[in-house]
Amino acid sequence: MAATRAVLARPVTFVTGNAKKLEEVKSILGQSIPFRSLKLDLPELQGEPEDISKEKARLAALQVNGPVLVEDTCLCFNALKGLPGPYIKWFLQKIGHEGLNNLLMAYEDKSAYALCAFAFSLGPDSEPITFLGKTPGKIVPPRGPNDFGWDPIFQPDGYEQTYAEMPNEEKNKISHRSKALAMVKSRFAEAGYTFQTDTSV
Amino acid sequence: MAATRAVLARPVTFVTGNAKKLEEVKSILGQSIPFRSLKLDLPELQGEPEDISKEKARLAALQVNGPVLVEDTCLCFNALKGLPGPYIKWFLQKIGHEGLNNLLMAYEDKSAYALCAFAFSLGPDSEPITFLGKTPGKIVPPRGPNDFGWDPIFQPDGYEQTYAEMPNEEKNKISHRSKALAMVKSRFAEAGYTFQTDTSV
Repeated sequence: MAATRAVLARPVTFVTGNAKKLEEVKSILGQSIPFRSLKLDLPELQGEPEDISKEKARLAALQVNGPVLVEDTCLCFNALKGLPGPYIKWFLQKIGHEGLNNLLMAYEDKSAYALCAFAFSLGPDSEPITFLGKTPGKIVPPRGPNDFGWDPIFQPDGYEQTYAEMPNEEKNKISHRSKALAMVKSRFAEAGYTFQTDTSV
Repeated sequence: MAATRAVLARPVTFVTGNAKKLEEVKSILGQSIPFRSLKLDLPELQGEPEDISKEKARLAALQVNGPVLVEDTCLCFNALKGLPGPYIKWFLQKIGHEGLNNLLMAYEDKSAYALCAFAFSLGPDSEPITFLGKTPGKIVPPRGPNDFGWDPIFQPDGYEQTYAEMPNEEKNKISHRSKALAMVKSRFAEAGYTFQTDTSV
């Protein structure tokens, strides 16, 4: 299939209010996609991760009136059939790392996966497309700096360290977020998007 | 404060797709408020129960273009600081009664409360008002008929039976839903709403 070259009227707006997420996205995307970041107060839906991020992209594109990239992150426990999943934010906020470990007390199986659903929309009239990145691992008692969500309790498969203990460059090689962003990047390269304005926004 | 008499152009639309909920609401409201029921596919938000039901009422009033009553039900575990709360539907669906009991394996405290948040809106331009009903109890291994959500694992304080084991009339005397509906009823009586059309819809 031939790639369609599309000109975007402005840089992509990455919607987030989370400085650490923004930092990761910047470091992973580098100069590949011109973007600016914006904190928007968007309603967050219940449901499946992919649908949640699609709907968020729809609402964001309406508000921004231009191309947007949004993200939804899940931490899914296999023993709990993928939950807390998209609701991890509330669980982390209310019961913390210890409480999250406790949810699995009844189970031998501590396996889990980190899931990142990016959704990209070209604008208010476009159907968002999604990119899912998944990293398998397990839930462990917290280790490492406690400055980014549930990173201290997630130990990716094949590593002795938790996300929180890993150097950023190391984490960014294997993380759910970097896997999803790699797909965003190839999609952008494939589509050959070009930008009318400069990226110093 | 003097009650304002308002004339509603139509019966209240109670938004639900759940036959058992509808049955309970009918049996609790009796003839006190003329209403019809309607299944609407509304987006369900994440957040606090009261906000979730308010937003649902807003969206429903827009779609129905008239007075609506919506409901959001939560099952809140005290050891989990109120969670699963509004996400109980997904937890029940994915991990069932046994899984829900397992979430509390790490805790002595099996106490919980059932929470019902009704939101009523007069129409698309009205700010919804909410009515919260709460019934304290505890989470137990399932007992009783398994035909209404998490009723088999919730045993209200002061009772030896689970919701599922109680006769309907008994449950409707003390349930979170009946407490919230009692407030809806008094509000309607106070406001002195009258209806233009008949109720045989």
